[in-house]
Amino acid sequence: MWRVDAAVVEQIAIGAGILGTGGGGNPYLGKTHLLRLLREGADKPVVVAPGEVPDGAVVASVGGMGAPTVGIERLSRGDEWTVALRALEAHTGKRVEYLVPGEIGGSNSTRPLVCAIQTGLPVVDGDGMGRAFPELQMDTFSIYGVKCTPAGLADIRHNTVVFADLADTVTLERYARAVTVQMGGHAGYAFPLMSGADLKRTVVPDTLSLARAVGAAVEDARRAHADPVAAVLRVTGGEVLFTGKVVDVERRMAAGFARGSLRIEGLGDWRGATLAIDFQNENLIARRDGGVVAVVPDLICLVDAATAAPVTTEVVRYGLRVAVLGIPAPPLLKTPEALAVVGPRAFGYDVEYRGLGTED
Amino acid sequence: MWRVDAAVVEQIAIGAGILGTGGGGNPYLGKTHLLRLLREGADKPVVVAPGEVPDGAVVASVGGMGAPTVGIERLSRGDEWTVALRALEAHTGKRVEYLVPGEIGGSNSTRPLVCAIQTGLPVVDGDGMGRAFPELQMDTFSIYGVKCTPAGLADIRHNTVVFADLADTVTLERYARAVTVQMGGHAGYAFPLMSGADLKRTVVPDTLSLARAVGAAVEDARRAHADPVAAVLRVTGGEVLFTGKVVDVERRMAAGFARGSLRIEGLGDWRGATLAIDFQNENLIARRDGGVVAVVPDLICLVDAATAAPVTTEVVRYGLRVAVLGIPAPPLLKTPEALAVVGPRAFGYDVEYRGLGTED
Repeated sequence: MWRVDAAVVEQIAIGAGILGTGGGGNPYLGKTHLLRLLREGADKPVVVAPGEVPDGAVVASVGGMGAPTVGIERLSRGDEWTVALRALEAHTGKRVEYLVPGEIGGSNSTRPLVCAIQTGLPVVDGDGMGRAFPELQMDTFSIYGVKCTPAGLADIRHNTVVFADLADTVTLERYARAVTVQMGGHAGYAFPLMSGADLKRTVVPDTLSLARAVGAAVEDARRAHADPVAAVLRVTGGEVLFTGKVVDVERRMAAGFARGSLRIEGLGDWRGATLAIDFQNENLIARRDGGVVAVVPDLICLVDAATAAPVTTEVVRYGLRVAVLGIPAPPLLKTPEALAVVGPRAFGYDVEYRGLGTED
Repeated sequence: MWRVDAAVVEQIAIGAGILGTGGGGNPYLGKTHLLRLLREGADKPVVVAPGEVPDGAVVASVGGMGAPTVGIERLSRGDEWTVALRALEAHTGKRVEYLVPGEIGGSNSTRPLVCAIQTGLPVVDGDGMGRAFPELQMDTFSIYGVKCTPAGLADIRHNTVVFADLADTVTLERYARAVTVQMGGHAGYAFPLMSGADLKRTVVPDTLSLARAVGAAVEDARRAHADPVAAVLRVTGGEVLFTGKVVDVERRMAAGFARGSLRIEGLGDWRGATLAIDFQNENLIARRDGGVVAVVPDLICLVDAATAAPVTTEVVRYGLRVAVLGIPAPPLLKTPEALAVVGPRAFGYDVEYRGLGTED
């Protein structure tokens, strides 16, 4: 058990920004909100290891859904997830005892901590993705059989919708995404509701700790005038796929997502080469001079080449000098049943998944 | 109190088809379903006058939402409204005691009768529109202050969604319409939940009886080789706005609605003239040689010129010889608060509402 103070918030924001692989919601906004609450005297959120959660406990995931590009123009009210949680509780008659992030990436790492302050509940050290993904069916809770409904959704005006009983999480993705678009492109969610036993079976463990460790390593390196990018690689086991200057960003809102692609021209060792990345909220595939160098579910992370500050899809722009990191996905995302949902083909890419760090 | 047998179903289908002003769902499909249930031995649905409903009773409206053009290509399962009702009951912990049609037009007159067979509940003789309208906020329950949520929605696969608490019925229309589109363009709904007292205050009364009477008059006229169109006018207090041949139909699916327009060239007294009608599921405005002759909320009804069989927006086509009837809207739709929601300007027409039958 540990507590999240302001210093830890800064670290988690850096780490979750990187692990978000471009998405998960703007990490700066999530951080700012959490810091304000702490400054105003809120109790520091409690984080517990998955192993500390009793099998019979009632656990719910909370966070935000929508397009990150909407999130930076239309601020959230800040309690949508908590309102969604209360709607879910009212619908089921159950009281939730533990919160867990649906995705560790971006501001969806800090929103459960905000919800923890609003509700007094502890947050599980782990999440359903070990990164961020654009669609709801792409979390390990769903992949490993936790039923997605009932699910709560709430908007900035505190309108609440409960998806009472749906066939599967793909259906929830379609129905909830359609409502989210009507809600203005951003909503707070609370789902799935699960037992402590199901949580422990399906969660990607220790990812709040990982985000914190990544952030701490980056801060240490910056203070020591060492290489912060190298620090990220040490903590995550990742590698630098490319370094260069962003020369083109094509970005559009489509069906509630920020979709697009970007192009980076090489610098240093990669001078003369070009890296292209496709994204749907998150970075999906990286091709260097046409050849695939990384693809989902592995993490493709853009960071500022000098500071290792995360560069997300809604703020990436011409001229930024970035390092593109490849970080191996957690083992729970690489099983056959997971790859069917979060592998290249699930995103429409006709390429074989060969994990980063795997020998040719 | 009266019961709906097969002969009455035939009459209601004719009357509701006419009162549907082009929409409300294909009346033939609703009729066929109801007749099959009765043939299979189902108890005849019980219809009660609004005055027979106790003030403290729990009443819910049920029916289908979507585009009529979808309804004729993709058949409903036939119990979506009942599944939506059960989801609403489970959410609220209340047992519904009376059903009421949301709109008397089209198959939304017969669906509550199907639901009555499926649940054993009585149906109130009345509805929320006295006709059909395309959008959810356009019923008298909403116009006169009955809260629209919680509201249940269910699809052909028995997926259920509960709109738990929304700001207003326009929001429900937007959110539920978005989900309905994802549900394949058709859904069963159950809302609003109201007391018997609220029902009696807001319902358009006796419209199942009216639909039945219209149908019976048409049948009688057909049998007597009299004019069935004249029979409709006698029962409804309407007038013939135009008679002619349909020469053009422009129809498209847009945002979950069947939108479009049609053009009729005059025959008989109207030879040389042209009538144009715009529709959004239902007929909204009729212009004869450019001048408005009828507009919402008054009813603009296309019927076969010889048989008075209703011609709905999803089946109207080139070559049909039709009479266009204008029927005055019920008084509850003509108050200032109602006209703000269902008058010409609510549909984007910059014309003053001057009721049918009103002197110039």
